[in-house]
Amino acid sequence: MNLTNGKRLVIVGGVAAGASCAARARRLDESAQITLIERGPDVSFANCGLPYFIGGEIKQRDALAVQTPQTLKAMLAIDVRTSTEAIAIDRPGKRVQLREIAAGTTEWLPYDKLLLAPGAVPLRPDLPGIDDPRLFTLRSLQDMDRIKATAASARRVTVIGAGFIGLEMAEQFVRLGKQVTLVELQDQVLPPLDGPMTHLMEDELRRHGIELILGDGIAGFVGEAALTCRLNSGRVVEADLVVLSIGVRPDTALARDAGLELGLRGHICVNPFMQTSDPDIYAAGDAIEIKDFVSGDATAVPLGGPANRQGRLAADHIFHLEQTKPYPGALGTAIVRAFDVAAGLTGWSEKRLRAAGRMYRSVTVNDNHHAGYYPGAKPLLLKLLWDPETGRVLGAQVTGFLGVDKRLDVIATAITGGLTIDDLAQLELAYAPPFGAAKDIVNLAAFTACNARDGLVTPIDSIPNDPLVQVVDTRPAALVQAHPLTQVSSVNIPLGALRQRLGELDRSRPVVTVCALGKSAYFAARILAQNGFQVSTLTGGIRAHFDPRTPAKLPTP
Amino acid sequence: MNLTNGKRLVIVGGVAAGASCAARARRLDESAQITLIERGPDVSFANCGLPYFIGGEIKQRDALAVQTPQTLKAMLAIDVRTSTEAIAIDRPGKRVQLREIAAGTTEWLPYDKLLLAPGAVPLRPDLPGIDDPRLFTLRSLQDMDRIKATAASARRVTVIGAGFIGLEMAEQFVRLGKQVTLVELQDQVLPPLDGPMTHLMEDELRRHGIELILGDGIAGFVGEAALTCRLNSGRVVEADLVVLSIGVRPDTALARDAGLELGLRGHICVNPFMQTSDPDIYAAGDAIEIKDFVSGDATAVPLGGPANRQGRLAADHIFHLEQTKPYPGALGTAIVRAFDVAAGLTGWSEKRLRAAGRMYRSVTVNDNHHAGYYPGAKPLLLKLLWDPETGRVLGAQVTGFLGVDKRLDVIATAITGGLTIDDLAQLELAYAPPFGAAKDIVNLAAFTACNARDGLVTPIDSIPNDPLVQVVDTRPAALVQAHPLTQVSSVNIPLGALRQRLGELDRSRPVVTVCALGKSAYFAARILAQNGFQVSTLTGGIRAHFDPRTPAKLPTP
Repeated sequence: MNLTNGKRLVIVGGVAAGASCAARARRLDESAQITLIERGPDVSFANCGLPYFIGGEIKQRDALAVQTPQTLKAMLAIDVRTSTEAIAIDRPGKRVQLREIAAGTTEWLPYDKLLLAPGAVPLRPDLPGIDDPRLFTLRSLQDMDRIKATAASARRVTVIGAGFIGLEMAEQFVRLGKQVTLVELQDQVLPPLDGPMTHLMEDELRRHGIELILGDGIAGFVGEAALTCRLNSGRVVEADLVVLSIGVRPDTALARDAGLELGLRGHICVNPFMQTSDPDIYAAGDAIEIKDFVSGDATAVPLGGPANRQGRLAADHIFHLEQTKPYPGALGTAIVRAFDVAAGLTGWSEKRLRAAGRMYRSVTVNDNHHAGYYPGAKPLLLKLLWDPETGRVLGAQVTGFLGVDKRLDVIATAITGGLTIDDLAQLELAYAPPFGAAKDIVNLAAFTACNARDGLVTPIDSIPNDPLVQVVDTRPAALVQAHPLTQVSSVNIPLGALRQRLGELDRSRPVVTVCALGKSAYFAARILAQNGFQVSTLTGGIRAHFDPRTPAKLPTP
Repeated sequence: MNLTNGKRLVIVGGVAAGASCAARARRLDESAQITLIERGPDVSFANCGLPYFIGGEIKQRDALAVQTPQTLKAMLAIDVRTSTEAIAIDRPGKRVQLREIAAGTTEWLPYDKLLLAPGAVPLRPDLPGIDDPRLFTLRSLQDMDRIKATAASARRVTVIGAGFIGLEMAEQFVRLGKQVTLVELQDQVLPPLDGPMTHLMEDELRRHGIELILGDGIAGFVGEAALTCRLNSGRVVEADLVVLSIGVRPDTALARDAGLELGLRGHICVNPFMQTSDPDIYAAGDAIEIKDFVSGDATAVPLGGPANRQGRLAADHIFHLEQTKPYPGALGTAIVRAFDVAAGLTGWSEKRLRAAGRMYRSVTVNDNHHAGYYPGAKPLLLKLLWDPETGRVLGAQVTGFLGVDKRLDVIATAITGGLTIDDLAQLELAYAPPFGAAKDIVNLAAFTACNARDGLVTPIDSIPNDPLVQVVDTRPAALVQAHPLTQVSSVNIPLGALRQRLGELDRSRPVVTVCALGKSAYFAARILAQNGFQVSTLTGGIRAHFDPRTPAKLPTP
């Protein structure tokens, strides 16, 4: 074998997708000439770890360097060129123009195949004061270092944007003892999730002293002694350091200038083998448009997992053509932890299904993350969405303290397998007291979904503002007394007494049953329905809609 | 509605399947006359929790009572008859004969539908000395109480049978400060798993002072001052308390006497709607024979999860006929924790596939349970088995410290969905540094499986005892020095130096590459194969086969 006689692969961008492609390419072909171009000084670093180094949870900066230019050269015999920019592509000539950033020198590098993995750039809108040096975005290790250095002397930190990274940053600044304000344009944190699924997380952030400003956006900055953030509402927030995490845009100037096809939002279009409109040019990672797994429509999922696998798949197709399987599309599975709470989603949310005008049904259920009789059981809230025609699972959201990731992963796998709510009901998950329950919350959600489908329960997401409706709180009287339902007027008929007290309700008026978790309210609804009442049930109960920490029972004295 | 005019459902057995059926039946039909017959004094107790109460991890005995006869009566209007045995079934007359155990009185109870949920009895072979009062099996709360009382004054405890319950019991006795011996007829703990997947667990048990006696069975007992266990080998073990956990047999005398069809091993045969050979008699739980999900053959899975869902399904079929979905078959997903280690399986093991003469392939991979750069990452070992013709996943086994249950659940869901190794490779699981990795170990196992399928690697499970074979240890030299591979003679060529040192190897002789985890050995195999060597790789590396705690790198100084 001879390293100088093989296929010439040039990779632009050396982090997730680019480094994965390079490593896989080398395994597939010892003779390939692989060149990795990276604008920054680092390759293959753990960009998902940056907030944790800022906050000190990750103590060794070296830990973030998954590979270095040196290890890539030594282990993979790859020509790594850092601090070098790809500035133009000559497609007919099959060569890419490079510029060494420090020296300014340029050269043309020939390729047989080219992979574009340029990633995405944090949005930095053209607002007044946007160039203040105390205002940061987070993409590279250098951004991280600058934020960490500035944070050392900052007292007040404002994070703009309460998405996944915004939450991680806010948590880490609290860890550093800062006074943290988190501003979000939507009226909830974690905008990809449906509102009620974020209540626990919002409560957790507030409990840790974070000031949440929801439903308000950033209008501009005024930099004086402090950096003043002016919000759309007129409100002002003073900070010593501001992190802007309001989203990203694909870094696709090179692709656009080369005349490659771009999507409506500027992403590079690729086929399921990661080929752009030029079959010798591949693209992968945060900069591309891919197929949504659920709908088949074009989407973009700027996350590390998909980027890694796309880069690997591109290498497969370049070197290993016949066995390469097409990219199946993205689910958008994502999770975030802040303090003791985790929240995440996979597949489609209700708001997204509604906006797309798609048919769906949903239920929300509460349960413990493992058997309640085993010490340490922590509550989970799970929302399941499915297609009423086929029964197929469309998406799920989970929040809680432990085991959130497991349920997301199970449902992501279920969506991948095209499982229906009936399949999910019978799913045989690992059960021993420290790990799960004989009926896991995933089974429970599917049972509830099947019950809704079969007409055994009519789940509703809010209590109708209608004086005719009789709201029945089915919790034990002592629990109602300790944790009254203040948001709506209701009558308390505990489940155990319902059969005897049916006479207190008016059969001619609709009934809504409510309880802490939604379980006894469902049981009550079954009794009422079979006794001739028109009844619906608040899905997910008081905990999902009014109070994310309401207890299911009183502590035993 | 009137509780006296509906369908008469009699349920024999009030724990997992029986109680689930009763509760579901009531939700489906307020008018049903539901009678629950239970031989013991308790219903619906958490039998999976019994070991944890003995060891004191579960402190409140009440916690194990998921329901009581009183709560079942109050909430579900069910006639609960505890301490009552069903002794005969008059099928033509559709009635079951009951005997109140204390009084000895009998009566006939008519039914429209009958559910048999008698469960399984711990095996208690007819050995010399088997009736010694210091020898226990564990099925009921009363067994638990007796063991706990005897344990209070015991110093030496022997557990016979190192299956799931045997391990839980052994752990709990260590917790109580006992000197514990664990005896197992097979030459490994956890017989359902393939041998190498139990090494970490065996090491963990030994580290906690448990004496493991493997490959030796119990021949009899001699009860004097101590209870002496005589083993097949002639070895004797003295104990103050012995727990026998060598398996269970279905408790099916009633079904057999009633002429219901039984399987080869004495389980009650049911159709996918849980109907026995008499369509008015259903059966569910540990006593029944069900379809294996992977093969479709008859099997028995005496576990709490399936039992609960089967009981529920029987109620669906009895009351709700048209929407009931057939039972999909059982995967046998199971997990156990002992001390800090968990181990489990889903679907078929290699030994089971081999015994059945089925085609399969397998790989074993190591990785961390979450991103290695985030603090607290713990190692996992995962073995994946698939069908070489279809690529479909047949089974998996996982062991490690954290996240074992999550991977089992993902793969159980994947098997349920008929996913292939290609699907698993692209699975989009939840990733944030505290929860996973951009490429989860499930993805990694599937990558490796695809590589094996595609001929990129030849995984082997043991190093051939052949002097012609050149074993190449690809670990860094300092790591080899600190943790030498003593089991086979090998040459150390670190991966980074391999391309330069190819001349040291003989192209005419086969090569096996080995490293700590199997990763760099794979990378080395790719280099060697492309340089004309015939090469295979020890799948799972030294950690899977020789030393379950061997480090992947030296600690940074």
